[in-house]
Amino acid sequence: MHYRLALLGFGNVGKELAKLLLSKRNELEEQHNITYSVVGIATAKHGVAIDPDGIDLDRALKIPDLTKLSVRQMPLDAFEFLRQCDADVLFENTPVNYDTGQPAVDHLNTALELGMHAITANKGPVVHAYKQLKDLAKKNGVNFYFESTVMDGAPIFSLFREALPGANLLSFRGILNSTTNMILTLMENGESFEQAVTYCQSIGIAETDPSGDIDGWDAAVKVAALATVLMGIPLKPQQVTRKGIRELTAQDIAQAVKSGKRWKLVCSARLEGGAIQAKVGPEQVAPGSPLFTVDGTTSIVQFETDVLGALSVIEADPGPHTTAYGLFADFLNAIKKNEAA
Amino acid sequence: MHYRLALLGFGNVGKELAKLLLSKRNELEEQHNITYSVVGIATAKHGVAIDPDGIDLDRALKIPDLTKLSVRQMPLDAFEFLRQCDADVLFENTPVNYDTGQPAVDHLNTALELGMHAITANKGPVVHAYKQLKDLAKKNGVNFYFESTVMDGAPIFSLFREALPGANLLSFRGILNSTTNMILTLMENGESFEQAVTYCQSIGIAETDPSGDIDGWDAAVKVAALATVLMGIPLKPQQVTRKGIRELTAQDIAQAVKSGKRWKLVCSARLEGGAIQAKVGPEQVAPGSPLFTVDGTTSIVQFETDVLGALSVIEADPGPHTTAYGLFADFLNAIKKNEAA
Repeated sequence: MHYRLALLGFGNVGKELAKLLLSKRNELEEQHNITYSVVGIATAKHGVAIDPDGIDLDRALKIPDLTKLSVRQMPLDAFEFLRQCDADVLFENTPVNYDTGQPAVDHLNTALELGMHAITANKGPVVHAYKQLKDLAKKNGVNFYFESTVMDGAPIFSLFREALPGANLLSFRGILNSTTNMILTLMENGESFEQAVTYCQSIGIAETDPSGDIDGWDAAVKVAALATVLMGIPLKPQQVTRKGIRELTAQDIAQAVKSGKRWKLVCSARLEGGAIQAKVGPEQVAPGSPLFTVDGTTSIVQFETDVLGALSVIEADPGPHTTAYGLFADFLNAIKKNEAA
Repeated sequence: MHYRLALLGFGNVGKELAKLLLSKRNELEEQHNITYSVVGIATAKHGVAIDPDGIDLDRALKIPDLTKLSVRQMPLDAFEFLRQCDADVLFENTPVNYDTGQPAVDHLNTALELGMHAITANKGPVVHAYKQLKDLAKKNGVNFYFESTVMDGAPIFSLFREALPGANLLSFRGILNSTTNMILTLMENGESFEQAVTYCQSIGIAETDPSGDIDGWDAAVKVAALATVLMGIPLKPQQVTRKGIRELTAQDIAQAVKSGKRWKLVCSARLEGGAIQAKVGPEQVAPGSPLFTVDGTTSIVQFETDVLGALSVIEADPGPHTTAYGLFADFLNAIKKNEAA
């Protein structure tokens, strides 16, 4: 089977996806009988390329102006781009918008309407339009997947969807924001909050305005996404009881270390009588907890279900390439179901 | 869709499976449109029941002689039992045989020949006949699944099969034997080796002859199963470099604790240039490792792939009910594929 792919957004993650697609090309063909061509790449600042015969990904990764690879006129907007691409799969990687999920929601909506599988690493659409997009996907016989929105490429949504059938999630608890976990780890090593933030900015894991991480918004969005998808309880980030790490002092950190504990920004949610208690906040974690050894950018989530003891997943060393793998896995899972159906 | 199930073996795990099937009956029907009847239960010591109209599972869980629930003559052997059952799915839960995998291999073989999905919690067939059984399943359009053979019901095989498409496993490292981990934990708390073994026997996690656990055989079989299935390298337990925990003294344990470390029976395997290095042996683990906090009967496996950073799965509080969930999950995954195909 041959698949035509469209990439909306071609930043770090989009580029890593292109590299992964290139490096897995032979393996896909030989082991899975799958071939692909990238028929469209759209960026905000580096132009748009459309080529029904397939864009040379190697060149796309090098060239500063993608328009030079296009055989079509520049589309008016993302929606015209999607219509012109006539792709089977959209990878949506535009920047996240915590408030509304837009314009990613509309991009995904259009792709699904056009009969494409819609895949995104963007958390916005999951917390703002999960049900709508999932229902639309079902109606059109395609899939809406978003594995990379929580813990990068580590399988979380697919774990429940594909590997834990018949299990009901009762609660979860974890460390889901890498930046704050790195800051807390650095502060344990004696760095000041400001030094730690500056370091995180220098290695590209904190934004110029780091408040989305530090005030717990990113973590709250992830809690909302997990609750919405895995517990079936639509939850907005604003409904998550949220406290960031801004008020933690060097003294707090040192005191915890002295008593054999560690401060962690803990994400949690629990179903109780059909209602949900969801929370993000700093907690002192003791050595017996699996959260205790989670350092730096590593993340963890511990699931309590009705069928197993506590089940934890830990992901170390995340980066744009692991986010790209989540998109790639979504692609393979989406077409697997499609081929079977 | 309605499925007829047969249970070969009805010990702790078989009974927990029966309870799980009962407790999930309404959920399966309402949420997945799946109904089932158990048409056969065969035991070595408590008789055999066959009823094409479905055996009353509640009664089967209480009655000492299953034969009283049967509408058929007692079959001559397990093979005649399978033929008479005319089931869609076999759950094979006879005792493990590390040397040959028999008679479980023959049971599974017969079930697959008869067009049944074959599901087992028995490690023997996986290390002795994986390829043969998998090929036979494929030929007959059914599935051979065995999620519960490693880390009970925690998703390991299904994780790679369903949730990590296109990922290649390069190495793994973990704690896969609960009994030895419990013994080491107890010895850290000051108990002698003999006291610890006796305790493990009293709570039912160690056999009367505990050598299978203590000498690392159970761990070696699990390493062989993971390598065979997930790395595609057929490996026999005898090919795993193996050392148990028998030689660890109270002094060794205390010394490690004093230096901030812990002895663990570590299972590992690594692919290098197409060859595999597989090992089971005691190692001192430092606090930075995710293995460090794994206490008692908890188990962990850490995977290194070509697409993600280290990915760990931790399962706490295993028991016959979690093994039963693995069988149940295999059932749902087996019929999902079947229905789609």
